[in-house]
Amino acid sequence: MSHDRIAQQFAFLVEADKLKTIIRRTSLIDLSRQENSAEHSWHLVLAAMLMREHTAVEFDLLHALEMLTIHDLVEIDAGDTFAYDASGQATKAQRELDAAERIFGLLPSDQAAYLRALWEEFEARETPESRFANAMDRLQPLLQNARSDGGSWRTHDLTRDQVLDRMAPIESALPTVWPIVVEIIDAFCASGLIRVP
Amino acid sequence: MSHDRIAQQFAFLVEADKLKTIIRRTSLIDLSRQENSAEHSWHLVLAAMLMREHTAVEFDLLHALEMLTIHDLVEIDAGDTFAYDASGQATKAQRELDAAERIFGLLPSDQAAYLRALWEEFEARETPESRFANAMDRLQPLLQNARSDGGSWRTHDLTRDQVLDRMAPIESALPTVWPIVVEIIDAFCASGLIRVP
Repeated sequence: MSHDRIAQQFAFLVEADKLKTIIRRTSLIDLSRQENSAEHSWHLVLAAMLMREHTAVEFDLLHALEMLTIHDLVEIDAGDTFAYDASGQATKAQRELDAAERIFGLLPSDQAAYLRALWEEFEARETPESRFANAMDRLQPLLQNARSDGGSWRTHDLTRDQVLDRMAPIESALPTVWPIVVEIIDAFCASGLIRVP
Repeated sequence: MSHDRIAQQFAFLVEADKLKTIIRRTSLIDLSRQENSAEHSWHLVLAAMLMREHTAVEFDLLHALEMLTIHDLVEIDAGDTFAYDASGQATKAQRELDAAERIFGLLPSDQAAYLRALWEEFEARETPESRFANAMDRLQPLLQNARSDGGSWRTHDLTRDQVLDRMAPIESALPTVWPIVVEIIDAFCASGLIRVP
């Protein structure tokens, strides 16, 4: 194993530190500050370890955890695009492709290709691992918002349909969890924090 | 799968959010603030994915990633004990045992037992997965400190022997990486940031 290879891995790990400075719209549950994408990614991995038992199909948990760990790294260059921001979403794909090229490209080529493939798989939402990972990426902000007085739902005046649509990956990946998700959303509708037009 | 079981998992995931407020001695590499234990845990999982190829023995990567994900959760109650703080280290074990009891105890009993066993395995440093996980827990702060002008080494006036002793788990788990770690430490000794008595 060459000195150069290890140096590339170290350089990538140093660059990855910047994900801790990418700020999301979601707050910590104690409302002390907004969440960053590195700690968000950690929370998804933890959620995946515990919620995997609720999935309808068999899948490779290691593969899903690796996917969740790297899924937001492109935000180091592309920033966090708010899920409900239509104009940001329109340019997101190209910005993230450029970011993937640069950031994963810091690694030895075999590892760059592996992480890039994991990221593309996450984005495509076609494999069981990717569908499950995307469901975790919806469930964790739901819990954050539900426990922080409406969180990013409140501040962005969303409707019930918008929130349900955003949460839909949970319905297909974790069918037995879905009714509880709908209960949480409906409680927020009842209290007026999510709009029912 | 009962409603109660999912509610316990959600309550645990909400409690885990507090790990994002546990502040470590290590700074982010850009020196903008100190690191928290949740984003630190994420960084270790990422490091593990990339560095596993350097280990001397075969091991179960999924098991190591799960261990790294949960290894600091006890700090929600017990706080982060600085590695070089002797008096804090003396009371750390009991504080963390109490924390493990309460925090993992929020989960359904089978998952509580699983996470607790993972944490105990991490602390015991006896299995290949645990030795590797502990090596990651040393390597990441090394990179943070090396790229942030000495970081927690500088502010705590450490000697070369103290730092080498702290980094020793890297030597046994990742023997081919060790010479590069010693190079980094010696460069800091040469520049006067680590003391050579």
